[in-house]
Amino acid sequence: MNAPKPVPKPYLIRTALEEILADLVEGDPVPSERDLAAQFAVARETVRQAVHELLVEGRIERRGRGTVVSKPKLIQPLSLKSYTEGAQTMGRKPGRLLVGWEDVDPTPELAAALEIESGQQVMRLERLLLADDQRIGLESTYLPKHRFGHFTETFDPETSLYAAVRAAGVVFGAAVERIETVLASPREAELLESTTAMPMLRLNRRSVDTEDRPIEVVRSLYRGDRVAFEALLTDR
Amino acid sequence: MNAPKPVPKPYLIRTALEEILADLVEGDPVPSERDLAAQFAVARETVRQAVHELLVEGRIERRGRGTVVSKPKLIQPLSLKSYTEGAQTMGRKPGRLLVGWEDVDPTPELAAALEIESGQQVMRLERLLLADDQRIGLESTYLPKHRFGHFTETFDPETSLYAAVRAAGVVFGAAVERIETVLASPREAELLESTTAMPMLRLNRRSVDTEDRPIEVVRSLYRGDRVAFEALLTDR
Repeated sequence: MNAPKPVPKPYLIRTALEEILADLVEGDPVPSERDLAAQFAVARETVRQAVHELLVEGRIERRGRGTVVSKPKLIQPLSLKSYTEGAQTMGRKPGRLLVGWEDVDPTPELAAALEIESGQQVMRLERLLLADDQRIGLESTYLPKHRFGHFTETFDPETSLYAAVRAAGVVFGAAVERIETVLASPREAELLESTTAMPMLRLNRRSVDTEDRPIEVVRSLYRGDRVAFEALLTDR
Repeated sequence: MNAPKPVPKPYLIRTALEEILADLVEGDPVPSERDLAAQFAVARETVRQAVHELLVEGRIERRGRGTVVSKPKLIQPLSLKSYTEGAQTMGRKPGRLLVGWEDVDPTPELAAALEIESGQQVMRLERLLLADDQRIGLESTYLPKHRFGHFTETFDPETSLYAAVRAAGVVFGAAVERIETVLASPREAELLESTTAMPMLRLNRRSVDTEDRPIEVVRSLYRGDRVAFEALLTDR
């Protein structure tokens, strides 16, 4: 029989921290790194690594000079529904803050994705996505101007874009969505009240209507500590 | 009219680096941070941030003492197909390395997810997922022993588990998959030949058969610099 392998310290500390968190609720203070190191008789660095993992996963967060238990992550369904509907399903109050809205000359890649002709313009709508007033994502939506140019007169950018698209008689048919992990640029980190060291989720989406005509290209950045994505897969 | 805003340096460096990369192919060396800082007349720290972003995104990678252009990411479709099929679609050679395979006493959470009764056991199969011999993910699959116990006799753990499940007459009906970004533990980082500082993608999946009976619970960790997930969304 083999001798049992020694259990590594980082694993033990992580497990001990999980047990402490299991007894706490949102907003409760988490013991300091110094106290945890003393309690478990390990180096401060060992505790720091475990605490950092839990910060990245959004289980705990810095508040003022201390660390507290976080609100559970927003689970965003991968579907043709809007951000609004996803947040509401979770019992969160969705909101948006306008960052910028302007016409841009599309790159060749963007022009191809939106199937627009040379010389035609694209609107770029950049918004912060909020849940219960917390900043959770930064979304840039590119819309063909010849199709949605009237939005500059009619659309309130702090409301649901998908509701406005549907009200214009356009029906979402399909979308391809890609998810990656990235770091935020300094500008993005500042807008999201985070740092360039915290992992983010990048989501790129291209949506078409029921006749396969492009509606939008979306490039979003979500705080990895506040959002998870969920897909329901079936055999169809 | 407002004066144009100055463009921040990190953005300029990132754009300049993208232009350099556009002219290079996989395996080509990337100029050193020192040379880039001199070329663009910026602080070494400004270059370092942009290079770090590209490392996290898997556009470039460390090789020996230098940095080279990476192979494109493996795009893993979110579907009921197996890892094997996803990798093959991308023209990559899928592979697996067995890390561990043993019976475990399930946690109450796992027992509920697999709908097993008290006293019944669960098999845990831990494997490294390879693409063209590169380590891209670490997958732990939990299977109800009363249903798949015979796999210990019949299943080669370096082949496709989904093929074996199907060969046993089980038909995948649906799965719920959750995607988050996390950091690897020291053990996971070592197995994936990465570090605890590099963002990873955590994927949790629960699959059921066409009669809604649980097949598996999967907990995978993918290298964020080597994998992206893609979903096709439709209006069904």
